[in-house]
Amino acid sequence: MINKKSKLYLGWLSHSKSENSKYKKYLENILVLYKSEIIDSALSEIRRAFEQISNNKSQAIYENEKDVKGIEYIKLEKVQDDALINDGYKIKHEIISEKEKCISVLANSDIGILYGVFALLRLFEQNKQLEGIQIIDNPKKAIRIINHWDNMDGTIERGFAGASVLFESCRNKDIMKDVMDVIGGITATNNALRKAFNDDYKVASDLDRINDYARMLSSVGINGAIINNTNVHAAETYLIDNKINIVKTISEIFDRWGIKTYLSINFAAPITLGDLQTSDPLDNDVIEWWKRKTEYVYSVIPNLGGFMVKADSEGRPGPFTYGRNHADGANMLASALSPYGGRLIWRCFVYNCKQDWRDHSIDRAKAAYDCFTPLDGQFLDNVYLQIKNGPMDFQVREPISPLFGVMDKTNKLMEFQITQEYTGQQKHVCFLIPWWKEILSTPTYANHGKTNESSVANRIDGIAAIVNVGNDENWTGHFLAQANLYGYGRLAWNSDISSEEIVEEWISLTFGHNPIVVKNVKDILMNSWDAYEKYTSPLGIGWMVAAGHHYGPDVDGYEFSPWGTYHRADCRGIGIDRTLESGTGYAGQYNEPLKSQYNDLEACSDELLLFFHHVPYTHVLKSGKTVIQHIYDTHFEGFEAVEVFANKWKGLKGIIDEKVYEHVLERLNIQLNSARDWRDQVNTYFYRMSGIEDEKKRKIY
Amino acid sequence: MINKKSKLYLGWLSHSKSENSKYKKYLENILVLYKSEIIDSALSEIRRAFEQISNNKSQAIYENEKDVKGIEYIKLEKVQDDALINDGYKIKHEIISEKEKCISVLANSDIGILYGVFALLRLFEQNKQLEGIQIIDNPKKAIRIINHWDNMDGTIERGFAGASVLFESCRNKDIMKDVMDVIGGITATNNALRKAFNDDYKVASDLDRINDYARMLSSVGINGAIINNTNVHAAETYLIDNKINIVKTISEIFDRWGIKTYLSINFAAPITLGDLQTSDPLDNDVIEWWKRKTEYVYSVIPNLGGFMVKADSEGRPGPFTYGRNHADGANMLASALSPYGGRLIWRCFVYNCKQDWRDHSIDRAKAAYDCFTPLDGQFLDNVYLQIKNGPMDFQVREPISPLFGVMDKTNKLMEFQITQEYTGQQKHVCFLIPWWKEILSTPTYANHGKTNESSVANRIDGIAAIVNVGNDENWTGHFLAQANLYGYGRLAWNSDISSEEIVEEWISLTFGHNPIVVKNVKDILMNSWDAYEKYTSPLGIGWMVAAGHHYGPDVDGYEFSPWGTYHRADCRGIGIDRTLESGTGYAGQYNEPLKSQYNDLEACSDELLLFFHHVPYTHVLKSGKTVIQHIYDTHFEGFEAVEVFANKWKGLKGIIDEKVYEHVLERLNIQLNSARDWRDQVNTYFYRMSGIEDEKKRKIY
Repeated sequence: MINKKSKLYLGWLSHSKSENSKYKKYLENILVLYKSEIIDSALSEIRRAFEQISNNKSQAIYENEKDVKGIEYIKLEKVQDDALINDGYKIKHEIISEKEKCISVLANSDIGILYGVFALLRLFEQNKQLEGIQIIDNPKKAIRIINHWDNMDGTIERGFAGASVLFESCRNKDIMKDVMDVIGGITATNNALRKAFNDDYKVASDLDRINDYARMLSSVGINGAIINNTNVHAAETYLIDNKINIVKTISEIFDRWGIKTYLSINFAAPITLGDLQTSDPLDNDVIEWWKRKTEYVYSVIPNLGGFMVKADSEGRPGPFTYGRNHADGANMLASALSPYGGRLIWRCFVYNCKQDWRDHSIDRAKAAYDCFTPLDGQFLDNVYLQIKNGPMDFQVREPISPLFGVMDKTNKLMEFQITQEYTGQQKHVCFLIPWWKEILSTPTYANHGKTNESSVANRIDGIAAIVNVGNDENWTGHFLAQANLYGYGRLAWNSDISSEEIVEEWISLTFGHNPIVVKNVKDILMNSWDAYEKYTSPLGIGWMVAAGHHYGPDVDGYEFSPWGTYHRADCRGIGIDRTLESGTGYAGQYNEPLKSQYNDLEACSDELLLFFHHVPYTHVLKSGKTVIQHIYDTHFEGFEAVEVFANKWKGLKGIIDEKVYEHVLERLNIQLNSARDWRDQVNTYFYRMSGIEDEKKRKIY
Repeated sequence: MINKKSKLYLGWLSHSKSENSKYKKYLENILVLYKSEIIDSALSEIRRAFEQISNNKSQAIYENEKDVKGIEYIKLEKVQDDALINDGYKIKHEIISEKEKCISVLANSDIGILYGVFALLRLFEQNKQLEGIQIIDNPKKAIRIINHWDNMDGTIERGFAGASVLFESCRNKDIMKDVMDVIGGITATNNALRKAFNDDYKVASDLDRINDYARMLSSVGINGAIINNTNVHAAETYLIDNKINIVKTISEIFDRWGIKTYLSINFAAPITLGDLQTSDPLDNDVIEWWKRKTEYVYSVIPNLGGFMVKADSEGRPGPFTYGRNHADGANMLASALSPYGGRLIWRCFVYNCKQDWRDHSIDRAKAAYDCFTPLDGQFLDNVYLQIKNGPMDFQVREPISPLFGVMDKTNKLMEFQITQEYTGQQKHVCFLIPWWKEILSTPTYANHGKTNESSVANRIDGIAAIVNVGNDENWTGHFLAQANLYGYGRLAWNSDISSEEIVEEWISLTFGHNPIVVKNVKDILMNSWDAYEKYTSPLGIGWMVAAGHHYGPDVDGYEFSPWGTYHRADCRGIGIDRTLESGTGYAGQYNEPLKSQYNDLEACSDELLLFFHHVPYTHVLKSGKTVIQHIYDTHFEGFEAVEVFANKWKGLKGIIDEKVYEHVLERLNIQLNSARDWRDQVNTYFYRMSGIEDEKKRKIY
């Protein structure tokens, strides 16, 4: 049973008892001049905080200015302020009279007020100085969404924190999956089957938990959630059909917290649902079908954010089936959504997943750019291309996707992956914020732009990420992985916030202010991505991972696969030649000077060297080390870093919540074993391959 | 739907129309002096043959000598003949008078008569000259059994020919498996669950097919079948409990064909079935439990052959749990079986499956010998140790298990694997008889014995093999894999029969006598094992296979695993050092001169070189080639051999059954693609690793 009062569950939304806080008095009196569902949510957060902070339970809500004369209070007020955009908020502290002091939370929208309340509570919890402050905080982007890869049977693709919090785990899920695979849908006139289907796919029974989840998202500014897996199988196709009530239930909860619900849809839905023989986006019947279907969906869920589509990728259907391009496909759906203000999010994760490893001329990294750039200017205004941060697939290190530097006439969303598919699967601590910061600040040099103005952050119209949440008590499998969800929201709000600020915020909200706790947790988190990179994949090569599940080392795991994911190591050297002169030419997809920086062996940074160049093991890096010595050194260092993490964590015994302590310690021990495997397998592989001794004569097996 | 009249289904038990056969007349008149269930089976085979061969349907059965005066007839007669042993038979042709001619089938037992009838029908089908013949044919071994790795839910571990022919595929199998895993049994008082369990686990609904399967086995002399998987999970534990009627039904069918039914049992059954807290074989309650349980089982199935146990291996429970040895475990069960004449078969597949690849001193190959040899002389008379042919696990090439050369005071069974787990999974043609012949004729030099008298064949008390049968129409997935089942039976009967004889028998029974068919099919079969070895695993190294499912190449697939299955390749060389001087010492488990032959690099045959020695790629083999050139050459040659197979098969278009032709052609194309993958991945791996060019400058990627 999940304990909803535990620190594991409450995470950063817990409030520590602080009777002496000088701002506690403000929480006793709330002035709110009008009510709405979202304002109610804001008030409920204030009440929770008050109840946790204070022994005194008597909180007063006032609806009239005159009632707060001469006291300290918080005021929630909707205003018309041009300085506020994208549901931004203002927090202002005023001393109205000697006795009367007010902290105002002001915004142009209810959602803005809610965000302001969450922000104020953060300031309280951090014991920030509020006297006389005036903060204006606007989100940089209007679109800040979460993607769920949750299936309707309660499983989560690449989920590492238990089953779905949105969909009930399905009693007969294996059978239903088989049935769905076989018959492709339930239009067959089999009543027993229909009954089983109706019985078996349900919204999660714990709606209160969905509400708590929405609070978490809203507290860091997330304003949209795609609730089902981008790979829409037969069953999930019915979410726009006779399973729509599941969506309705979830969306009503999300609405209370300012989160728009989006749906991943099946491009072949007209066929899967048994209505048409085609899904050709230029076919009139198909166009009409989607128009009516969208009309129906919005009649049930008027506030729906829109649809997301993964098309023509890894076995998913798409416009290519009908000789159409992705603009044809996206625009057809966007037109259907347009009357309702809906958005159409179209993933750019398109590549040939059946390539031949023997053929060195094909390059998966090039695929998205090649597919989409010719279509720039053809997409409707409510189409958003969702582009993975790098050209491959969420490796621990990749260059930015070259698409961010082009397609000026097209709306673009960044796609990050919070769920740690390739970064330790929430068994390893791997704080991803520094990595995302690096990506967002990378200049694209689009239109000969300067470094900062052409940065990825400034090229995108919104930000999305695949979430790491499941129904484990601690939400994210690894408790410290909550920091990735928290940090994602904060970055999505404002990518200028530094990693250090984010980590300190999260720690103080989660653990309080004990300096040793702050220091040790911060040290662990801030060094964790670097450590993970070190003991796994050196110099941008990626992919040396067990095929399929993607956990643990297997240097050749993808080397002879059809997925386009190779290292090309031999006894002389390693790396993928993606140069213009002798390689796949991928480097040419970047704007200058990035193109030359990547293309030129001398200019290319160490971090990405093997992504762009095939070099001998004896090649000397900018660091002064040879490639092979770098491999050895980083793998020893990475493992040692995890030993340091474990020791730092052990220093927290007795001064943090015991369950959190034991849980994280257990994960760190798992990580230690896994890091040892990584170290030894990778080092052994390359020692055997190169025959070159470690300069430091350490044990390689 | 399966067509039971198709050539695919009938296989070698089909009879070709041959109106002109001079022996056809004999089939019209059968003299049989008494009846029994097994004699009925023999008569039914004669009738089938008669009906298929002849247009004339009037076959007469006589029960009195005087009724056959002056005609040609077949006589079935039970005799007392000391020349006949192990259910052997005699076939004798006599000209009694000018008009009266008799082919007698004589045996000391009904089963012997049945075997004689199958043999006679083979002779007919092969158009052998029978005038005046007198054949005495005794099986060399009394124990000739088949192991099924069938689970009660209808799945088959390492099955490549569809679901089980014995157990019905279970509607709710996935759920039931989950449930079983979770609760460990169904003793919980959950009636719905019990009902689902009772509903869901059943004997196969097609009992007629089980009968046809028994005919196939009996026709080649198999006299025992272990009907369930050696890995006995929770559900199958109930086969000795409330699911015993499944066993009863199967055994009653098998009994008709002289096949004893055996059961794999769960050593922890007293716990799993909820009766005891221990399975300690020296605990009195446990002893008593098994005594009563065995009494119960024999009360239902009086003709049961006995039990088989896989203990203390790959997660299975066993006596080690209680600090007991394998003699303690086996003898306790053997005692319970003894009153009923039951046998206890105990597998020697015991090793540490969680070893560390870093530790070169542990050697899985040594485990069985180390575990069992100290126990020689301690096992009861009805205990049989079942020993895999080699020390590892059914690789395409291994040395013989050293256990065959020792343990003189213990009953030993050979264990082969007909199901092609590591030899192409019935997608590839791989005729295994030549390989088994080689194993059986290998001298063990036990007790300083001479080559022949100490051969493996002469050291064993019986023979067992994991069968390759499922409910595919053609029984074995690949039609040509029927030859492995046929050949296994023939070898189990008499390992002196040559591979050529077996293959010619099988071809003529299956395809008839067209010389081009005989030649091409024989060429394919006789070269197929050699080809498979060539394009997969060179020089005895084994294991360069995809982990888990074991199909297709993955050179490093097991290199960093805990399974004890490595190649230790680096840029300089390859192979496992199992010598006494510098290696694991495994070679020392053999009797001289085998020990020296394996231990000495110069003496060791090329075929097993890398199993025993780590050598540089430039090491020169007895063949005159370097190791690396051997790897390249064999991989190209192996692929080319499959091209030849495909061409030879195409030469049969129009002259064999069309469905058989198309089916095998499809498999050969699959094999071609797979062999190409093997060739290219293995060659590329070792070219990259060694940096040594192919002398013949062929394309290596």
